[in-house]
Amino acid sequence: MKKKYQVVGIGNAMVDILSHVEDDFLTKNGVEKGIMQLIDMDRAVELYGHMGPAQEISGGSAANTIAGIAALGGRTAYVGKVKDDQLGAIFSHDLRAQGAGFETPLAVKDHSHETGRCMVLVTSDGERSLNTYLGVSEFLGPDDIDERMMADAEWLYLEGYRFDGPDSKAAFAKAIAACRTAGGKVSLTLSDPFCVERHRDDFREMIRDHIDLLFCNHHEICSMYETDDMFAAMDQAAAEIETVVVTASEDGAYITNGTGREHAHAVPTQIVDATGAGDLFASGFLYGLAHSYDMLTCGRMGNVAAAEVISHIGARPEADLMELFKEHGLV
Amino acid sequence: MKKKYQVVGIGNAMVDILSHVEDDFLTKNGVEKGIMQLIDMDRAVELYGHMGPAQEISGGSAANTIAGIAALGGRTAYVGKVKDDQLGAIFSHDLRAQGAGFETPLAVKDHSHETGRCMVLVTSDGERSLNTYLGVSEFLGPDDIDERMMADAEWLYLEGYRFDGPDSKAAFAKAIAACRTAGGKVSLTLSDPFCVERHRDDFREMIRDHIDLLFCNHHEICSMYETDDMFAAMDQAAAEIETVVVTASEDGAYITNGTGREHAHAVPTQIVDATGAGDLFASGFLYGLAHSYDMLTCGRMGNVAAAEVISHIGARPEADLMELFKEHGLV
Repeated sequence: MKKKYQVVGIGNAMVDILSHVEDDFLTKNGVEKGIMQLIDMDRAVELYGHMGPAQEISGGSAANTIAGIAALGGRTAYVGKVKDDQLGAIFSHDLRAQGAGFETPLAVKDHSHETGRCMVLVTSDGERSLNTYLGVSEFLGPDDIDERMMADAEWLYLEGYRFDGPDSKAAFAKAIAACRTAGGKVSLTLSDPFCVERHRDDFREMIRDHIDLLFCNHHEICSMYETDDMFAAMDQAAAEIETVVVTASEDGAYITNGTGREHAHAVPTQIVDATGAGDLFASGFLYGLAHSYDMLTCGRMGNVAAAEVISHIGARPEADLMELFKEHGLV
Repeated sequence: MKKKYQVVGIGNAMVDILSHVEDDFLTKNGVEKGIMQLIDMDRAVELYGHMGPAQEISGGSAANTIAGIAALGGRTAYVGKVKDDQLGAIFSHDLRAQGAGFETPLAVKDHSHETGRCMVLVTSDGERSLNTYLGVSEFLGPDDIDERMMADAEWLYLEGYRFDGPDSKAAFAKAIAACRTAGGKVSLTLSDPFCVERHRDDFREMIRDHIDLLFCNHHEICSMYETDDMFAAMDQAAAEIETVVVTASEDGAYITNGTGREHAHAVPTQIVDATGAGDLFASGFLYGLAHSYDMLTCGRMGNVAAAEVISHIGARPEADLMELFKEHGLV
């Protein structure tokens, strides 16, 4: 039976504040290059004060993925927490305007935190360094999970970053139970190597018990299984999970699903801003999966979507992704 | 004596919400192409609800001009009204981070309006159609004018759009008096042909009595003097004003200052988004003027800055304008 949603994502909800910086700005301001650092409001204000002029584009890792699926015409919805403030309105608009459902209850105006934001510092090599003030995004809890929506999902897509919060694990558990009971499947992205450091045991337990499809990059899976050998780590994951997808930057993506390993070569592109590469890879892959394409084609769809998003500023797609799939002979 | 500021701008303060649309979106939603329409909050909410995903970049016509001057290293400051809200924080940050002074008192949190915003609908021909909810920007008044700052300005730069508001004319009068008394000069931009329609008599009076330098495009000056002949209109203006600068899209800019007329040819470029073309022209021109370049060079500086800003989304400069001036042999 066709379900209402092909993919329902759960994760952070925030607006990206993107600015170009020189490498020495990162050093001077204590920003570690290429990763995501959680910061509090005081640090956010300090860092923003040092940054140059910026532009704001909706973000949130899994939200970017869902926006990409919606842009492709997939049936999709998102669950994430914003406040009833201007950044919250921007985030909500951009998802809905893209065609994704978004009905998570808003944090009220007198909540002590604001809608989350991520200061994205883009260096001339296209690498992005993320500085995230989670704001109310951190307070996503079980009450925000609509079990009917979860039961209506062919796939759940869970954001690893969202393990950073008091009630999110309970929210994930509730969502997983409702989805699985109704015959749906569950995917997870590991998000970031330092996120894996913080939550390795929880991630492993979840992977073992509940995950059908794991998204990660080579750094994350190596961190997860505490090895330098990406393929050894993939084998470990594949022993527990139906499908494991590892993105490896310019080396494209590797996919294992029991019977063997596929390699989807990367799509060459000029990297302007790497923000959202993994997120949009997941958009393409999940879109393919929901439309019953083979694993290699799913991987190539992921690579095409990732190449589009790194060719411009911001982590939401700008070009017509379906047109790009056609150009690459994928549909 | 060198003054603290080369240029102080006074005008609207808002954040642009930029989105690509097809031409038929404009027709269906009652948006007139290529001009600025003032809208109320209800209309803003309605139109935003119909728009696709967007990105936010600080805007405001004269604020864009001041940001451009600051980007060139000019000594500059801005006066415009935002609220103590998230969009207000974005606007303030982006000006200050660019190096411009911005100290206008914020509208308080319980003000019935929010920080202004402009929905910028960009069609595939690069033309932009502006839908402006002024918000608190409309309430700029004489109390917001710091007379010492005005006296410290070599040039004032007044935004024609800001005539749409109850107390702004009084604010302009106060600023002009303080600047002129201290030996400064005053420039004005006519902003938009329909803005000229709304305020023709006020503009004419101000031009006759107080303006040393007038910026406008060919549509605006023709509207002002109610003629179809741009050069005839320029001659009328030149009879009353020291310097008249008319931008004429791909025909570049014409400058008259008593002794004769100069023609600065446009810089060929691919138009991605015309937002800010006139604003950044004024940046380049005023920068040149403040550094005592001849009128033709000032016009060419304006054209180079305008070409940069229309080559990408958003009305704030992204490339290094001074580097572009060097490439064009202007400095």
